[in-house]
Amino acid sequence: MSRKSFPLSKVYGLLEPGPVVLLTTASQTKVNIMTMSWCTMMEFEPPIVGCVISNRNYTFNILKATKECVINIPTLELAEKVVGCGNSSGRKIDKFKVFGLTQVTASCVKAPLIGECYANLECKVVDEKMVAKYNFFILEVLKAWIDPTRKDPRTIHHRGRGVFMVAGETIKLPSKMK
Amino acid sequence: MSRKSFPLSKVYGLLEPGPVVLLTTASQTKVNIMTMSWCTMMEFEPPIVGCVISNRNYTFNILKATKECVINIPTLELAEKVVGCGNSSGRKIDKFKVFGLTQVTASCVKAPLIGECYANLECKVVDEKMVAKYNFFILEVLKAWIDPTRKDPRTIHHRGRGVFMVAGETIKLPSKMK
Repeated sequence: MSRKSFPLSKVYGLLEPGPVVLLTTASQTKVNIMTMSWCTMMEFEPPIVGCVISNRNYTFNILKATKECVINIPTLELAEKVVGCGNSSGRKIDKFKVFGLTQVTASCVKAPLIGECYANLECKVVDEKMVAKYNFFILEVLKAWIDPTRKDPRTIHHRGRGVFMVAGETIKLPSKMK
Repeated sequence: MSRKSFPLSKVYGLLEPGPVVLLTTASQTKVNIMTMSWCTMMEFEPPIVGCVISNRNYTFNILKATKECVINIPTLELAEKVVGCGNSSGRKIDKFKVFGLTQVTASCVKAPLIGECYANLECKVVDEKMVAKYNFFILEVLKAWIDPTRKDPRTIHHRGRGVFMVAGETIKLPSKMK
Protein backbone atom coordinates (compact mmCIF):
# COMPACT_ATOMS: atom_id res chain seq x y z
CA MET A 1 0.00 0.00 0.00
CA SER A 2 1.04 3.61 -0.54
CA ARG A 3 1.26 5.09 2.96
CA LYS A 4 1.39 8.87 3.27
CA SER A 5 1.58 11.28 6.16
CA PHE A 6 -1.89 12.56 7.11
CA PRO A 7 -2.56 15.95 8.74
CA LEU A 8 -3.20 15.75 12.49
CA SER A 9 -5.98 18.34 12.06
CA LYS A 10 -8.00 15.78 10.06
CA VAL A 11 -7.53 12.75 12.30
CA TYR A 12 -10.91 13.22 14.04
CA GLY A 13 -12.66 12.37 10.76
CA LEU A 14 -11.09 8.89 10.82
CA LEU A 15 -12.25 7.92 14.31
CA GLU A 16 -15.47 9.91 14.68
CA PRO A 17 -17.46 7.46 12.48
CA GLY A 18 -16.76 4.73 15.06
CA PRO A 19 -14.80 1.99 13.23
CA VAL A 20 -13.44 -1.06 14.98
CA VAL A 21 -9.69 -0.53 15.34
CA LEU A 22 -6.65 -2.67 16.01
CA LEU A 23 -4.41 -1.35 18.78
CA THR A 24 -0.76 -2.36 18.56
CA THR A 25 1.71 -2.22 21.43
CA ALA A 26 5.30 -3.34 21.93
CA SER A 27 6.92 -4.50 25.16
CA GLN A 28 10.69 -5.06 25.33
CA THR A 29 10.23 -8.61 24.08
CA LYS A 30 6.90 -8.82 22.27
CA VAL A 31 4.47 -6.99 20.01
CA ASN A 32 0.73 -7.37 20.38
CA ILE A 33 -2.56 -6.53 18.65
CA MET A 34 -5.87 -5.85 20.38
CA THR A 35 -9.29 -5.40 18.76
CA MET A 36 -11.02 -2.32 20.16
CA SER A 37 -14.31 -0.48 19.67
CA TRP A 38 -14.71 1.62 22.81
CA CYS A 39 -12.97 4.74 21.66
CA THR A 40 -13.85 8.42 21.13
CA MET A 41 -12.28 11.65 19.96
CA MET A 42 -11.84 14.17 22.79
CA GLU A 43 -10.07 17.09 21.07
CA PHE A 44 -9.40 18.16 17.47
CA GLU A 45 -5.77 19.32 17.57
CA PRO A 46 -3.59 17.97 18.83
CA PRO A 47 -5.91 14.99 18.37
CA ILE A 48 -6.83 13.52 21.75
CA VAL A 49 -8.48 10.09 21.88
CA GLY A 50 -10.05 8.32 24.85
CA CYS A 51 -10.31 4.54 24.86
CA VAL A 52 -11.25 1.70 27.19
CA ILE A 53 -8.75 -1.14 27.43
CA SER A 54 -9.80 -3.79 29.91
CA ASN A 55 -7.27 -4.72 32.59
CA ARG A 56 -7.95 -8.34 31.60
CA ASN A 57 -6.29 -7.70 28.25
CA TYR A 58 -2.60 -8.43 27.66
CA THR A 59 -2.33 -4.96 26.12
CA PHE A 60 -3.27 -3.23 29.39
CA ASN A 61 0.01 -3.77 31.21
CA ILE A 62 2.13 -3.13 28.13
CA LEU A 63 0.39 0.19 27.59
CA LYS A 64 0.75 1.09 31.28
CA ALA A 65 4.49 0.36 31.09
CA THR A 66 5.40 1.80 27.67
CA LYS A 67 2.76 4.55 27.34
CA GLU A 68 2.82 4.09 23.57
CA CYS A 69 0.56 2.43 21.00
CA VAL A 70 -0.70 2.64 17.43
CA ILE A 71 -4.39 2.78 16.49
CA ASN A 72 -4.72 0.96 13.16
CA ILE A 73 -7.97 1.19 11.18
CA PRO A 74 -8.89 -1.97 9.24
CA THR A 75 -11.45 -2.40 6.47
CA LEU A 76 -13.84 -5.17 5.45
CA GLU A 77 -11.28 -7.51 3.88
CA LEU A 78 -9.56 -7.78 7.29
CA ALA A 79 -12.77 -8.63 9.19
CA GLU A 80 -11.83 -12.25 9.94
CA LYS A 81 -8.43 -11.22 11.24
CA VAL A 82 -10.04 -8.49 13.37
CA VAL A 83 -12.32 -11.06 14.99
CA GLY A 84 -9.39 -13.46 15.32
CA CYS A 85 -7.41 -10.83 17.21
CA GLY A 86 -10.44 -10.19 19.44
CA ASN A 87 -10.89 -13.88 20.22
CA SER A 88 -7.29 -14.62 21.20
CA SER A 89 -4.68 -13.35 23.65
CA GLY A 90 -1.17 -12.08 23.04
CA ARG A 91 -0.21 -13.96 26.20
CA LYS A 92 -0.50 -17.18 24.16
CA ILE A 93 0.17 -16.31 20.53
CA ASP A 94 2.03 -13.89 18.28
CA LYS A 95 -0.94 -12.33 16.50
CA PHE A 96 1.12 -10.80 13.69
CA LYS A 97 2.38 -14.28 12.83
CA VAL A 98 -0.86 -16.21 13.38
CA PHE A 99 -3.03 -13.77 11.39
CA GLY A 100 -0.45 -13.02 8.70
CA LEU A 101 -0.24 -9.27 9.35
CA THR A 102 2.76 -7.09 8.50
CA GLN A 103 4.75 -5.04 11.01
CA VAL A 104 5.77 -1.64 9.68
CA THR A 105 8.14 0.52 11.72
CA ALA A 106 6.51 3.61 13.20
CA SER A 107 8.23 6.98 13.29
CA CYS A 108 7.49 8.22 16.83
CA VAL A 109 6.72 5.08 18.87
CA LYS A 110 8.10 1.56 19.29
CA ALA A 111 4.75 -0.13 18.63
CA PRO A 112 4.47 -1.16 14.97
CA LEU A 113 1.96 -0.05 12.36
CA ILE A 114 -0.12 -2.81 10.77
CA GLY A 115 0.76 -2.66 7.07
CA GLU A 116 -2.62 -3.98 5.89
CA CYS A 117 -4.65 -1.25 7.65
CA TYR A 118 -5.69 1.80 5.61
CA ALA A 119 -4.81 4.28 8.38
CA ASN A 120 -2.44 4.25 11.36
CA LEU A 121 -2.25 6.68 14.28
CA GLU A 122 0.89 6.71 16.42
CA CYS A 123 -0.10 7.61 19.98
CA LYS A 124 1.28 8.27 23.46
CA VAL A 125 -0.65 8.05 26.72
CA VAL A 126 -1.15 11.56 28.11
CA ASP A 127 -3.58 11.02 31.00
CA GLU A 128 -4.12 7.95 33.19
CA LYS A 129 -6.41 9.49 35.83
CA MET A 130 -9.41 7.44 34.68
CA VAL A 131 -7.55 4.14 34.27
CA ALA A 132 -8.04 2.84 37.80
CA LYS A 133 -11.80 3.33 37.78
CA TYR A 134 -12.78 2.87 34.12
CA ASN A 135 -9.73 1.35 32.33
CA PHE A 136 -9.97 4.57 30.31
CA PHE A 137 -6.72 5.79 28.72
CA ILE A 138 -6.36 9.24 27.17
CA LEU A 139 -4.02 9.31 24.18
CA GLU A 140 -2.49 12.01 22.02
CA VAL A 141 -1.97 11.22 18.34
CA LEU A 142 1.61 12.17 17.47
CA LYS A 143 1.71 11.10 13.83
CA ALA A 144 -0.90 9.87 11.37
CA TRP A 145 -0.59 7.81 8.18
CA ILE A 146 -3.12 6.95 5.50
CA ASP A 147 -3.43 5.14 2.20
CA PRO A 148 -4.63 8.10 0.08
CA THR A 149 -5.99 5.81 -2.64
CA ARG A 150 -8.82 4.66 -0.32
CA LYS A 151 -11.49 7.32 -0.66
CA ASP A 152 -14.49 5.66 0.98
CA PRO A 153 -12.94 2.98 3.18
CA ARG A 154 -15.29 0.10 4.02
CA THR A 155 -14.63 0.23 7.75
CA ILE A 156 -16.42 -2.23 10.02
CA HIS A 157 -18.46 -1.23 13.06
CA HIS A 158 -19.24 -3.70 15.83
CA ARG A 159 -22.85 -4.21 16.93
CA GLY A 160 -21.90 -6.93 19.42
CA ARG A 161 -21.27 -10.68 19.35
CA GLY A 162 -19.55 -10.78 15.96
CA VAL A 163 -22.22 -8.76 14.14
CA PHE A 164 -20.71 -5.87 12.18
CA MET A 165 -22.18 -3.04 10.18
CA VAL A 166 -20.07 -2.33 7.11
CA ALA A 167 -19.63 1.30 6.05
CA GLY A 168 -22.03 2.04 3.20
CA GLU A 169 -22.57 5.05 0.97
CA THR A 170 -21.18 8.52 1.68
CA ILE A 171 -23.42 11.59 1.69
CA LYS A 172 -22.56 15.27 2.05
CA LEU A 173 -24.85 17.87 3.53
CA PRO A 174 -24.29 21.64 3.77
CA SER A 175 -22.87 22.07 7.26
CA LYS A 176 -21.02 24.55 9.44
CA MET A 177 -19.98 21.69 11.74
CA LYS A 178 -16.29 20.82 11.94
CA MET B 1 -43.43 4.30 15.75
CA SER B 2 -43.74 1.32 18.06
CA ARG B 3 -41.41 2.04 20.96
CA LYS B 4 -40.51 -0.84 23.28
CA SER B 5 -38.34 -1.20 26.33
CA PHE B 6 -34.85 -2.47 25.39
CA PRO B 7 -32.62 -4.50 27.75
CA LEU B 8 -29.84 -2.44 29.35
CA SER B 9 -27.47 -5.38 28.78
CA LYS B 10 -27.75 -4.83 25.02
CA VAL B 11 -27.34 -1.04 24.94
CA TYR B 12 -23.63 -1.21 24.06
CA GLY B 13 -24.53 -2.66 20.66
CA LEU B 14 -26.41 0.53 19.79
CA LEU B 15 -23.57 2.97 20.51
CA GLU B 16 -20.49 0.85 19.81
CA PRO B 17 -20.88 1.22 15.99
CA GLY B 18 -20.40 5.00 16.41
CA PRO B 19 -23.61 6.65 15.12
CA VAL B 20 -24.20 10.37 15.30
CA VAL B 21 -26.68 10.95 18.13
CA LEU B 22 -28.99 13.72 19.24
CA LEU B 23 -28.66 14.61 22.91
CA THR B 24 -31.76 16.11 24.50
CA THR B 25 -31.80 18.07 27.74
CA ALA B 26 -34.44 20.02 29.66
CA SER B 27 -33.91 23.07 31.87
CA GLN B 28 -36.76 24.42 33.99
CA THR B 29 -37.97 26.52 31.08
CA LYS B 30 -36.62 25.00 27.87
CA VAL B 31 -35.80 21.78 26.08
CA ASN B 32 -32.83 21.49 23.74
CA ILE B 33 -31.26 19.15 21.18
CA MET B 34 -27.53 18.83 20.47
CA THR B 35 -25.88 16.85 17.67
CA MET B 36 -23.03 14.73 19.05
CA SER B 37 -20.49 12.24 17.73
CA TRP B 38 -17.77 12.15 20.40
CA CYS B 39 -19.14 9.37 22.52
CA THR B 40 -18.01 5.89 23.65
CA MET B 41 -19.23 2.98 25.70
CA MET B 42 -17.25 2.55 28.95
CA GLU B 43 -19.04 -0.38 30.66
CA PHE B 44 -21.54 -3.05 29.63
CA GLU B 45 -23.98 -3.15 32.54
CA PRO B 46 -25.13 -0.90 33.89
CA PRO B 47 -24.29 0.77 30.58
CA ILE B 48 -21.81 3.60 31.13
CA VAL B 49 -21.24 6.09 28.33
CA GLY B 50 -18.58 8.81 28.07
CA CYS B 51 -19.19 11.85 25.88
CA VAL B 52 -17.63 15.19 25.07
CA ILE B 53 -19.98 18.18 25.23
CA SER B 54 -18.20 21.45 24.54
CA ASN B 55 -18.65 24.19 27.12
CA ARG B 56 -19.51 26.46 24.18
CA ASN B 57 -22.73 24.47 23.66
CA TYR B 58 -26.01 25.57 25.24
CA THR B 59 -26.44 21.96 26.41
CA PHE B 60 -23.32 22.12 28.61
CA ASN B 61 -24.77 24.26 31.41
CA ILE B 62 -28.16 22.53 31.32
CA LEU B 63 -26.47 19.15 31.72
CA LYS B 64 -24.23 20.49 34.52
CA ALA B 65 -27.32 21.78 36.35
CA THR B 66 -29.84 18.98 35.75
CA LYS B 67 -27.47 15.99 35.42
CA GLU B 68 -29.96 14.33 33.06
CA CYS B 69 -30.22 13.81 29.31
CA VAL B 70 -31.46 11.44 26.61
CA ILE B 71 -29.24 10.01 23.87
CA ASN B 72 -31.45 9.62 20.78
CA ILE B 73 -30.19 7.67 17.76
CA PRO B 74 -31.37 8.99 14.38
CA THR B 75 -31.26 7.28 10.99
CA LEU B 76 -30.70 8.50 7.43
CA GLU B 77 -34.12 10.07 6.86
CA LEU B 78 -33.34 12.51 9.71
CA ALA B 79 -29.92 13.55 8.34
CA GLU B 80 -30.93 17.09 7.38
CA LYS B 81 -32.47 17.69 10.81
CA VAL B 82 -29.35 16.28 12.48
CA VAL B 83 -27.16 18.76 10.58
CA GLY B 84 -29.68 21.52 11.29
CA CYS B 85 -29.44 20.82 15.03
CA GLY B 86 -25.64 20.85 14.74
CA ASN B 87 -25.58 24.18 12.92
CA SER B 88 -27.85 26.10 15.31
CA SER B 89 -28.01 26.94 19.01
CA GLY B 90 -30.76 26.34 21.53
CA ARG B 91 -29.93 29.80 22.90
CA LYS B 92 -31.66 31.24 19.84
CA ILE B 93 -34.25 28.71 18.64
CA ASP B 94 -36.53 25.93 19.85
CA LYS B 95 -35.05 23.06 17.84
CA PHE B 96 -38.02 20.73 18.35
CA LYS B 97 -40.27 23.36 16.77
CA VAL B 98 -37.89 24.54 14.01
CA PHE B 99 -36.98 21.02 12.87
CA GLY B 100 -40.43 19.49 13.35
CA LEU B 101 -39.39 16.85 15.88
CA THR B 102 -41.71 15.28 18.43
CA GLN B 103 -41.19 15.38 22.20
CA VAL B 104 -42.07 12.12 23.93
CA THR B 105 -42.12 11.97 27.72
CA ALA B 106 -39.31 9.91 29.23
CA SER B 107 -39.82 7.58 32.17
CA CYS B 108 -36.78 8.33 34.37
CA VAL B 109 -35.61 11.82 33.37
CA LYS B 110 -37.15 15.21 32.55
CA ALA B 111 -35.40 15.50 29.18
CA PRO B 112 -37.69 14.32 26.38
CA LEU B 113 -37.18 11.45 23.95
CA ILE B 114 -37.20 12.39 20.25
CA GLY B 115 -40.13 10.47 18.79
CA GLU B 116 -38.62 10.16 15.29
CA CYS B 117 -35.40 8.46 16.51
CA TYR B 118 -35.23 4.66 16.36
CA ALA B 119 -33.64 4.31 19.82
CA ASN B 120 -33.58 6.46 22.96
CA LEU B 121 -31.38 6.10 26.05
CA GLU B 122 -32.40 7.92 29.23
CA CYS B 123 -29.23 8.89 31.12
CA LYS B 124 -27.98 10.54 34.30
CA VAL B 125 -24.54 12.07 34.83
CA VAL B 126 -22.56 9.86 37.22
CA ASP B 127 -19.04 11.33 37.04
CA GLU B 128 -17.92 14.88 36.28
CA LYS B 129 -14.24 14.56 37.19
CA MET B 130 -13.14 14.96 33.56
CA VAL B 131 -15.49 17.83 32.70
CA ALA B 132 -13.20 20.70 33.70
CA LYS B 133 -10.26 19.47 31.62
CA TYR B 134 -11.91 17.68 28.67
CA ASN B 135 -15.65 18.60 28.72
CA PHE B 136 -16.04 14.82 29.18
CA PHE B 137 -19.21 13.68 30.96
CA ILE B 138 -19.72 10.11 32.18
CA LEU B 139 -23.33 8.94 31.97
CA GLU B 140 -25.24 5.89 33.16
CA VAL B 141 -28.09 4.67 30.98
CA LEU B 142 -31.12 4.20 33.23
CA LYS B 143 -33.69 3.13 30.65
CA ALA B 144 -33.52 2.23 26.97
CA TRP B 145 -36.18 2.24 24.25
CA ILE B 146 -36.13 0.96 20.70
CA ASP B 147 -38.34 0.57 17.64
CA PRO B 148 -38.14 -3.23 17.31
CA THR B 149 -39.29 -3.14 13.69
CA ARG B 150 -35.96 -1.57 12.63
CA LYS B 151 -33.58 -4.48 12.20
CA ASP B 152 -30.66 -2.89 10.37
CA PRO B 153 -31.03 0.80 11.12
CA ARG B 154 -29.36 3.10 8.58
CA THR B 155 -27.52 5.14 11.17
CA ILE B 156 -25.30 8.01 10.00
CA HIS B 157 -21.64 8.38 11.00
CA HIS B 158 -19.86 11.72 10.74
CA ARG B 159 -16.57 11.98 8.85
CA GLY B 160 -16.31 15.74 9.37
CA ARG B 161 -17.64 18.90 7.70
CA GLY B 162 -21.06 17.49 6.80
CA VAL B 163 -19.76 14.28 5.20
CA PHE B 164 -21.49 11.21 6.59
CA MET B 165 -21.03 7.51 6.10
CA VAL B 166 -24.38 5.72 6.04
CA ALA B 167 -24.59 2.30 7.68
CA GLY B 168 -24.39 -0.37 4.98
CA GLU B 169 -24.72 -4.13 5.00
CA THR B 170 -24.58 -6.28 8.14
CA ILE B 171 -22.22 -9.26 8.41
CA LYS B 172 -21.87 -11.86 11.14
CA LEU B 173 -18.65 -13.67 11.95
CA PRO B 174 -18.12 -16.48 14.48
CA SER B 175 -16.92 -14.65 17.58
CA LYS B 176 -16.42 -15.09 21.30
CA MET B 177 -16.39 -11.30 21.71
CA LYS B 178 -19.23 -9.70 23.64
